[in-house]
Amino acid sequence: MPSPTRPRILILGGGFAGAYTAYYLERLLGNRDDFDISLVNKENYFVFQPLLAEIISGNIGILDTVSPLRRLLKRTDLYVREIESIDMEKKTVTLSHGFRPRPHVLSYDHLVIALGSTTNFRGMAGLQEHALPFKNLADAIFLRNHLIHTLEEAAIETDPEFRRQLLTFVVAGGGFSGVEVAAELNDFVRRVATHYRSIHRNEIRVILVHSGKRILDRELAGPLSLYAQSILEKRGVEFRLNDRLRAATPDSAILNGGERIQTKTLISTVPSAPHPLVASLPLHGEKGRLKANLFTQVEGSTGIWTLGDCALIPDPSGSGFCPPTAQHAMRQAKITAHNIVASIRGEQLKPFAFKGLGKMGALGHRSAVVELLGRVKQSGFLAWVMWRTVYWWKLPGLDRKLKVGIAWALDLLIPPELVQLKLGDPQGVSQAHFEAGEAVFEQGDLGDRLYIILKGEAEVVRSDNGTNVVLARLVPGEYFGEMALLNQKTRGATVRCVTSMDVLAVRKGEFSSLVANLPDLRRSFEQVMQKRTLQTRDLLQQGGEKH
Amino acid sequence: MPSPTRPRILILGGGFAGAYTAYYLERLLGNRDDFDISLVNKENYFVFQPLLAEIISGNIGILDTVSPLRRLLKRTDLYVREIESIDMEKKTVTLSHGFRPRPHVLSYDHLVIALGSTTNFRGMAGLQEHALPFKNLADAIFLRNHLIHTLEEAAIETDPEFRRQLLTFVVAGGGFSGVEVAAELNDFVRRVATHYRSIHRNEIRVILVHSGKRILDRELAGPLSLYAQSILEKRGVEFRLNDRLRAATPDSAILNGGERIQTKTLISTVPSAPHPLVASLPLHGEKGRLKANLFTQVEGSTGIWTLGDCALIPDPSGSGFCPPTAQHAMRQAKITAHNIVASIRGEQLKPFAFKGLGKMGALGHRSAVVELLGRVKQSGFLAWVMWRTVYWWKLPGLDRKLKVGIAWALDLLIPPELVQLKLGDPQGVSQAHFEAGEAVFEQGDLGDRLYIILKGEAEVVRSDNGTNVVLARLVPGEYFGEMALLNQKTRGATVRCVTSMDVLAVRKGEFSSLVANLPDLRRSFEQVMQKRTLQTRDLLQQGGEKH
Repeated sequence: MPSPTRPRILILGGGFAGAYTAYYLERLLGNRDDFDISLVNKENYFVFQPLLAEIISGNIGILDTVSPLRRLLKRTDLYVREIESIDMEKKTVTLSHGFRPRPHVLSYDHLVIALGSTTNFRGMAGLQEHALPFKNLADAIFLRNHLIHTLEEAAIETDPEFRRQLLTFVVAGGGFSGVEVAAELNDFVRRVATHYRSIHRNEIRVILVHSGKRILDRELAGPLSLYAQSILEKRGVEFRLNDRLRAATPDSAILNGGERIQTKTLISTVPSAPHPLVASLPLHGEKGRLKANLFTQVEGSTGIWTLGDCALIPDPSGSGFCPPTAQHAMRQAKITAHNIVASIRGEQLKPFAFKGLGKMGALGHRSAVVELLGRVKQSGFLAWVMWRTVYWWKLPGLDRKLKVGIAWALDLLIPPELVQLKLGDPQGVSQAHFEAGEAVFEQGDLGDRLYIILKGEAEVVRSDNGTNVVLARLVPGEYFGEMALLNQKTRGATVRCVTSMDVLAVRKGEFSSLVANLPDLRRSFEQVMQKRTLQTRDLLQQGGEKH
Repeated sequence: MPSPTRPRILILGGGFAGAYTAYYLERLLGNRDDFDISLVNKENYFVFQPLLAEIISGNIGILDTVSPLRRLLKRTDLYVREIESIDMEKKTVTLSHGFRPRPHVLSYDHLVIALGSTTNFRGMAGLQEHALPFKNLADAIFLRNHLIHTLEEAAIETDPEFRRQLLTFVVAGGGFSGVEVAAELNDFVRRVATHYRSIHRNEIRVILVHSGKRILDRELAGPLSLYAQSILEKRGVEFRLNDRLRAATPDSAILNGGERIQTKTLISTVPSAPHPLVASLPLHGEKGRLKANLFTQVEGSTGIWTLGDCALIPDPSGSGFCPPTAQHAMRQAKITAHNIVASIRGEQLKPFAFKGLGKMGALGHRSAVVELLGRVKQSGFLAWVMWRTVYWWKLPGLDRKLKVGIAWALDLLIPPELVQLKLGDPQGVSQAHFEAGEAVFEQGDLGDRLYIILKGEAEVVRSDNGTNVVLARLVPGEYFGEMALLNQKTRGATVRCVTSMDVLAVRKGEFSSLVANLPDLRRSFEQVMQKRTLQTRDLLQQGGEKH
């Protein structure tokens, strides 16, 4: 039986906004068959964000807060790919390639843009390179493993200063996300430290940096946010208020006020930036987010819908736009699904009318803060029970409810997990940022990387019997550190930054492969090395003669 | 109160051999305090190998088969590092560096070498680059995620040939390890495929390659191994017997007999090789394993002990040496611990006398084979119950017993997990192997890598309107693929191997960073590109004139 081509609805993004749009579309499809649903997401799972921070402490298993999209959405075609581009004229979306380097093009009649927001550290010196984001599952797993790594290293470190650095943890951002991360991190490191005989609890420092005069000052009323702050303080969290992160290096977090905190662990939950693809579309927008009406249609377009964190939808509860929360995204999804189907079937559109239920934040170990409908304000254990109950109830699928329930129960019985997963090697070519006065490496270190200066200047200093000789001053475009790599030796000198400096670091293995197989590159390195060896000899002789 | 320096026992390796030596040493230490125990392992956990394959299917959680060493060994100093070198004269062991590039040196009075074995693909064309090992936790997690990735890609692939390739899975090695991997893999992909609407079960192929005339022929008596083979066959596993893997490329597994199986998933459980550090020691050994006497002392040395898979200890049950099994390693550990303490305290040494209990292998979904004390032979469901009971009982720690028990129970209730974790990006610089006739890339593909030829030759072929023109023949030391990277375009020609070929592949991002920041490299690439552009124009004109 020939049938007319069905309208194709294409959803970009599988967070609360995108996944729930597909879910409600499937429900509206019922036993009819008058449209197709496709969803593109870079992961094959939906992340239940509210429980993400619990992965840090291991209160729940590392997969307990995500659900396979295929299991939630049985009638949707799922494409697990990145999105390369959107062509609004041809009504197509191009996806990144899979195992084979061929693009994949999807066409649509209705396009739902639900791409959320990203963490964007660009423009902040060193954050891109040295701060950890906390946005998705991979971030949470990485952070957890990194924390265990710092404890393992601190346990065998004999230099007290470096040990202190390893045991200092800095979180930037005092909104819900930063507070939840700081609380879970603090609980976790203090709890598992008991398994490290050589680490004492009072060696551990967890520092929360926030630009406001108290944490959660934008989210909650005074008493609740003060309660949250006092709970964390009691559990050992330190605060740096009215200050913010200015820069990061491999060894420190540098605050606007000038303080330099020596640390190997810096997590930043700010700033949240628009998705680059969304910002690039020729559509009405503001600060990279798309403007939509109360029907979730993008202004000035037909067949383009948007919702969730990447959308600016008028807030029915007052002025301005809807806040980027899961409760708003889920309700926008229901409206979006209804309105798309209505416009296909020629029915009446419905406006978005949800006014928000309230706010909740967990503070770790059996406490939370809750503010409902502007009236109910709760803190402490009761708030924590409410928090767990609500989110457990909202978890999609019985299997997740079962798993999280069991994990929470087991958490009362058995000690916290401290397995460090080492997954994936560090990248062979990466960038690093240093501030003036910091050493990139010290004389005597093992040679593990070559560095190319992108910005800033450095000095090469050699110490012999207490005499320091400046061997060279390096400027952008020059490289250093190749000697120890080519000769398989330790560093012959210290390289110290004169200004703040950005470098490209190439790992030993990759450097050796390239130099061995690209003759031009090898010749170029050998020439520079020869020149430097001669210069060094001359300078050291002069230095020796002076004394 | 001054006390004499305590003897220091240093254990290298945290598998069954090393971890249980430390465990028994702690028991012998009792409430005395007359020696120190240290253990070096590259991970902070102990892997319970017998259950590793169950991670593939998700029967157990990804952390359920590993236990934190710190929790098992409360009086041992743990060093989570790689071992760089052993100096038997100075009695020191140098560890790799941690966050800072400084070596860490440990000294010992008694050294226990329990480093196990490694997977070594060297010398087999393309295996190092394209075959997946199955040895440790990271391998198991990687394989599981890779399997889900192939299913996600197959679900949206429209080319039937490539789809078939994605849904073909090859396991090389028909010993216990290979059979368990094939069984779990087969169960898993067939079970989760039901969640992929576009994939049919009969599209899936799982192929087990084994050099013997039947699987498990070296491990089990005829009837049991035939039973195992028929069970797997019934569940859809195909066999290639009396054959072995000869080579691997990004697209295929190539067998000795000449068959080329198109696949994106090749797992090899053979060959197992000695640990490179052990093979390099100036001690009595054979094929890289250390020879020890029945007291587990390394022959011709004092204070050096060895056990487990890296040791050759006479087999008390007959001729030859002990097999590399967990049951032997655990009993050797008990003897080693006793003998070290005896030699410190001046007591009598004990010889190793364990003769082995039997063999067990799981065959996936509720069946197994068991052979005990050479008499009891069991197969099927009862054997599977025995298998689970024994290994559950052997799991170290109540918390693991609890977790694995719950996971097994949940497995009966909820559908299998199909979350694909994407952890860590692929390496920026890697090697690849191709066989004659294979294409490295095709004209029109997206340009994602530059290639440098290490060995072999290739042709650059351009097709225009059905005419093929060979633009160039490339030899070792030459590179190709740079044009599409520098000009941000698709591939302008196909590169096809004339002989078998090894290349170094550099990812676009890393290539761009290096070229942008190393002026000599940029100049060299630009010169070659200019020359090639001219050559190509000439050749295409000639080609055009001919027709």
